[in-house]
Amino acid sequence: MSDPEIPKKCKAGVVVNEGPDFRVEIQEVDVPEPGPNDVLLKLNATGLCMSDIHFMMNDWAVPPMSTFGIKCAGHEGAGVVVKVGSNVTGWKVGDRGGVKPLWDVCHNCEHCYSGRENYCQKGVYTGLVATGTYQQYITSPAIYTSRIPDGVSDEVAGPIMCSASTMHRALIDSGLKAGNWVVFPGGGGGVGIQGVQLAKAMGMRPIVIDGGEKKQKLAESLGADAFIDFTKEKDVAAKVKELADGIGAHGVLVTAYQAYNDSISYIGDRIGGKIMCIALPPAGTITLGTDPNFFAFKNLSITGTLVGTMQDTAATLEYARRGQLKSIAEVRGLSAMPESVQQLRRGEIAGRIVIDFNKE
Amino acid sequence: MSDPEIPKKCKAGVVVNEGPDFRVEIQEVDVPEPGPNDVLLKLNATGLCMSDIHFMMNDWAVPPMSTFGIKCAGHEGAGVVVKVGSNVTGWKVGDRGGVKPLWDVCHNCEHCYSGRENYCQKGVYTGLVATGTYQQYITSPAIYTSRIPDGVSDEVAGPIMCSASTMHRALIDSGLKAGNWVVFPGGGGGVGIQGVQLAKAMGMRPIVIDGGEKKQKLAESLGADAFIDFTKEKDVAAKVKELADGIGAHGVLVTAYQAYNDSISYIGDRIGGKIMCIALPPAGTITLGTDPNFFAFKNLSITGTLVGTMQDTAATLEYARRGQLKSIAEVRGLSAMPESVQQLRRGEIAGRIVIDFNKE
Amino acid sequence: MSDPEIPKKCKAGVVVNEGPDFRVEIQEVDVPEPGPNDVLLKLNATGLCMSDIHFMMNDWAVPPMSTFGIKCAGHEGAGVVVKVGSNVTGWKVGDRGGVKPLWDVCHNCEHCYSGRENYCQKGVYTGLVATGTYQQYITSPAIYTSRIPDGVSDEVAGPIMCSASTMHRALIDSGLKAGNWVVFPGGGGGVGIQGVQLAKAMGMRPIVIDGGEKKQKLAESLGADAFIDFTKEKDVAAKVKELADGIGAHGVLVTAYQAYNDSISYIGDRIGGKIMCIALPPAGTITLGTDPNFFAFKNLSITGTLVGTMQDTAATLEYARRGQLKSIAEVRGLSAMPESVQQLRRGEIAGRIVIDFNKE
Amino acid sequence: MSDPEIPKKCKAGVVVNEGPDFRVEIQEVDVPEPGPNDVLLKLNATGLCMSDIHFMMNDWAVPPMSTFGIKCAGHEGAGVVVKVGSNVTGWKVGDRGGVKPLWDVCHNCEHCYSGRENYCQKGVYTGLVATGTYQQYITSPAIYTSRIPDGVSDEVAGPIMCSASTMHRALIDSGLKAGNWVVFPGGGGGVGIQGVQLAKAMGMRPIVIDGGEKKQKLAESLGADAFIDFTKEKDVAAKVKELADGIGAHGVLVTAYQAYNDSISYIGDRIGGKIMCIALPPAGTITLGTDPNFFAFKNLSITGTLVGTMQDTAATLEYARRGQLKSIAEVRGLSAMPESVQQLRRGEIAGRIVIDFNKE
Repeated sequence: MSDPEIPKKCKAGVVVNEGPDFRVEIQEVDVPEPGPNDVLLKLNATGLCMSDIHFMMNDWAVPPMSTFGIKCAGHEGAGVVVKVGSNVTGWKVGDRGGVKPLWDVCHNCEHCYSGRENYCQKGVYTGLVATGTYQQYITSPAIYTSRIPDGVSDEVAGPIMCSASTMHRALIDSGLKAGNWVVFPGGGGGVGIQGVQLAKAMGMRPIVIDGGEKKQKLAESLGADAFIDFTKEKDVAAKVKELADGIGAHGVLVTAYQAYNDSISYIGDRIGGKIMCIALPPAGTITLGTDPNFFAFKNLSITGTLVGTMQDTAATLEYARRGQLKSIAEVRGLSAMPESVQQLRRGEIAGRIVIDFNKE
Repeated sequence: MSDPEIPKKCKAGVVVNEGPDFRVEIQEVDVPEPGPNDVLLKLNATGLCMSDIHFMMNDWAVPPMSTFGIKCAGHEGAGVVVKVGSNVTGWKVGDRGGVKPLWDVCHNCEHCYSGRENYCQKGVYTGLVATGTYQQYITSPAIYTSRIPDGVSDEVAGPIMCSASTMHRALIDSGLKAGNWVVFPGGGGGVGIQGVQLAKAMGMRPIVIDGGEKKQKLAESLGADAFIDFTKEKDVAAKVKELADGIGAHGVLVTAYQAYNDSISYIGDRIGGKIMCIALPPAGTITLGTDPNFFAFKNLSITGTLVGTMQDTAATLEYARRGQLKSIAEVRGLSAMPESVQQLRRGEIAGRIVIDFNKE
Repeated sequence: MSDPEIPKKCKAGVVVNEGPDFRVEIQEVDVPEPGPNDVLLKLNATGLCMSDIHFMMNDWAVPPMSTFGIKCAGHEGAGVVVKVGSNVTGWKVGDRGGVKPLWDVCHNCEHCYSGRENYCQKGVYTGLVATGTYQQYITSPAIYTSRIPDGVSDEVAGPIMCSASTMHRALIDSGLKAGNWVVFPGGGGGVGIQGVQLAKAMGMRPIVIDGGEKKQKLAESLGADAFIDFTKEKDVAAKVKELADGIGAHGVLVTAYQAYNDSISYIGDRIGGKIMCIALPPAGTITLGTDPNFFAFKNLSITGTLVGTMQDTAATLEYARRGQLKSIAEVRGLSAMPESVQQLRRGEIAGRIVIDFNKE
Repeated sequence: MSDPEIPKKCKAGVVVNEGPDFRVEIQEVDVPEPGPNDVLLKLNATGLCMSDIHFMMNDWAVPPMSTFGIKCAGHEGAGVVVKVGSNVTGWKVGDRGGVKPLWDVCHNCEHCYSGRENYCQKGVYTGLVATGTYQQYITSPAIYTSRIPDGVSDEVAGPIMCSASTMHRALIDSGLKAGNWVVFPGGGGGVGIQGVQLAKAMGMRPIVIDGGEKKQKLAESLGADAFIDFTKEKDVAAKVKELADGIGAHGVLVTAYQAYNDSISYIGDRIGGKIMCIALPPAGTITLGTDPNFFAFKNLSITGTLVGTMQDTAATLEYARRGQLKSIAEVRGLSAMPESVQQLRRGEIAGRIVIDFNKE
């Protein structure tokens, strides 16, 4: 059977000169054929995430993309199914689907069958081991593709696949509850701000620590009860304590690794405070911890979580559907991708850049 | 009304020369009068706990006992009510009662009314701020006295008030479950061994790390699935991993502060491992923590807990009542208290010394 | 020491002719003397609750108020401490305090020390066994008096003591989460509407089922995502299903006992739905349950809860302090109490009547 | 490639005359070919379960087996992989695998990706919609096949697939804890006894209610703290109360539907009791519930669960591996299957019959 609307070639942001001096070029690449258990997605949008930069520079402790034959980074894709593999039953052409940092998992280990597949030891990373969302047409395993509900635009859905879903997992794992004061160091950035929105939707009271008026406006407009500008405030921990009942925060969700060293101080005198490690610092540069007496006397917890699960993505898309997760994206056309990636690398991007594949 | 059976004077182990060269003397002291909300307990047994030594030496960051007019340490008391205060309704003469590290709490703060009164900021410590269980007759607030059920001897009940109750809290807070591998560094000692018994009773699989055959026999007889002798085993972490499904432990409950530095290594490749801080090291000597990447990639948690609550004591006494918490005590007469305290101080005691007030 | 500002006599709404033809009269009664562990409260406000009517009519399976020598019903009191008993340390004159359905508990049973003191088997009911809040000056056990924070008015605090606190407990016990659809049959009434506000504050999506435009306006203004008027809607369960993702509600909190029979139908095809029993029907008139197959195939739960705990009251007052629990009260002067009670009895009251003791 | 050891034909217990007068005949049937995502299992053992009878009689509200072209019932299979489909990566020939009541699920719905796939609305039932374990060679989806660890025999593993796994789910969902009194009405039967073993392994105190000395011996030998013979004990509820601290049971796990009517009475005066519905009565014959006042005053919960998940099966196999789940089977050869099925139908079987395919 012919698939008239599926082209042979498509546009893609391809990494060139992988390594410290990499660049992204828009090239024509082959549209892949879905395997029997896959769907073929035509993406409308992809977010740009700092992890993409790390994979293209290859400065993390993982093999280079080229090892796996991968030329396109990216893992925040939102699009529509244009073809389904021969064994696929749950998806049909026209369904909306999203691709996440984990392209697939083993589906048959203790993590996979307990809804904690973000820790599957056989997970396949998108944009590293499988072709990423910088390419418009990509395949995705049918049972590991996220359904995007009506009422959520692609520009909102894209970043949900990674950043919002990751924050949802951290919030759920933290055990923090409605009414709790939750500090987001780096909460004005593309990951943290999703946590702020989600925390607000769950009834928590977010306090954002970040720098600059632009981030302050963003944070306050998206649900922060308070914003502390670390470029102006001399004693940030004292300010957190003052805001949080004169005691201290119930939780700290660290999305800027520079904030780890101060994160415990935001707990103040709160009993049972939770520190959640989300930001991944350069390996070996930071030790987060404290005197065991302090753990005991404060009932303090430090925990880490890694990306989101299918559950997190689904729950987060639902928050978006009912308007509690607003777009944080600046949408740009495909031709802007190469330079946008460099801007991201240079730290010049506030919020999230989303590339619209249907726009020049 | 006369109370013919209550003497005016009683025996007590009184601290003399408080400080680094303290000693305990058996003296006759006044039997106290219970306040309107108190019961007067005639203790049959008291455990000797390392915290007693710290209070008498005054080498922790707390004021000396004498500041509070206190001459007797001790906080593991088991006895019988001999008099009740004028407002007391729930207790009567003859009821069995126990005294814990917290002599009283405020009963009216967020911690107290949520069953987490071990974190009450107005808690009164027994043997520091209130007269301790080295004295045979002491008062105890009626609503903060633990009921000792029939079938639990005083020599078992005494140490439950502190050590077992503390371990119960740590086990509950850890979220560890039946079937989990739980490592007890220092699990052959008086506190850790209670955790081993409780973990076994909850269906967990305890691995004890300690030194010497005596501790090995104790640990194995009280429920340890395995014992690792750190004086013989070169790579303890590798041994834990081998035992624990080739992956690593689900949890580590640290009751010997020297073990903090190695504790994270016992988690191995286990996802979602829990480190529980129970031992209190000399302040400022140890930092427990690791790279935030490790927290994130392993879903690792570090948490601390402090003593037990009324709930923990009651639950632990129940385990004892049905035979799942055996006596770990060497019982000695009152006249042996002064020297036993010195032995404890010098680290010469294995297990727990319990002083029987009714024995010379 | 003299207490110049405490009068010898005060106003009180006294029950006359206890039983089916009771009435309430405003009388002068003696101001009580606080016991050594009590505070004396001067109430500014009391809510009127349907339970008061039952106690005064004596149509529940409890002894009449007169058995206990009690002349004043009421258990939603908010006021200020004017005197403290001789043993009281945590309270001082001028502190704001509230009185709840439970006037005191034993503080020394498994329920009390685990923060579930609403199930203490020795609980003393306010307005039945202890003098109720229809009297302006009443005593309250210091450690069982709720602190009212600044920023919460007495007219808001009063009804929180019973209705909102009860709903908080039911919501917490239900395990329902942010994003869940929660149905409130009778949610336009004085108890249900507090649940609607709390559920909204916790990020849930409340659907109110009740009758009439007045209740619709109230419910929608206080956070209901949808209102179903049972006087107009023919198939309420179908409407719930349509609203709730085409599946059915995650939870049903029944505050109108007439709704029990239909409550399970609101779950529709939802797996894991929770029915919470809050309304107390005339004993023996209703059986709530279903075919065990349905429990199994739907993973359905039915659970009941009874009033709120100190924790619930504190948490609920916090929601009020930050503006998430609005006043639902119509405030009337003391002279209106007798007739207001009759109106409540006749079912003529929408929302909650709060009596202001400082107003004629 | 040839598969020399896989025969073309194999033995199977085929249903003949489906309906009220069905019988099972041992016939030669075709060995199926695994699909690309399947493994082909050579079963060594299958348990016989009452559900098989219902499917073959077609007296439940489901279409007959023949509708789906299925001739073999059975869903408790344990065997070894003899061939893997072309897309299968996680399994190899020689691996041990088990087949459960759910042959497959959709893997892509909210239940599947949260580890609650027992509630997948697209679940395919083994022995009804897919060929069951009465046939020696069957296919199984690779990612939905349970791994059987070394140290667990096939005769133990078989019944774990259904009965033990189902009881594990009920115990986990109940929230019951170590130390709790848990009543098993029908606990001497093939399903209940697995719950008794698991409850014991989790530190709970099982009380079995059943009839006859044979069941008493079985229950007591496998961990029951007490056995109540309903054929002799006049007031079973009073006996439960007496055993359970004079209060009543913390939980009741109903595996004999005749016991539903009495199940709530076993809770006695316990606050927070849990009734778990496991047995599936003939539809419409029983209503389980009570007065909402009782739910509220006792904090009572009634919940139902349905079969086990992959997690439950894995956890249960682990209990078996460490010896906490003993064999409850009477092992018979294949030729005994037809008559054994009839005996099961007539209620003449105590414990569990396991058919050994390798035995005449």
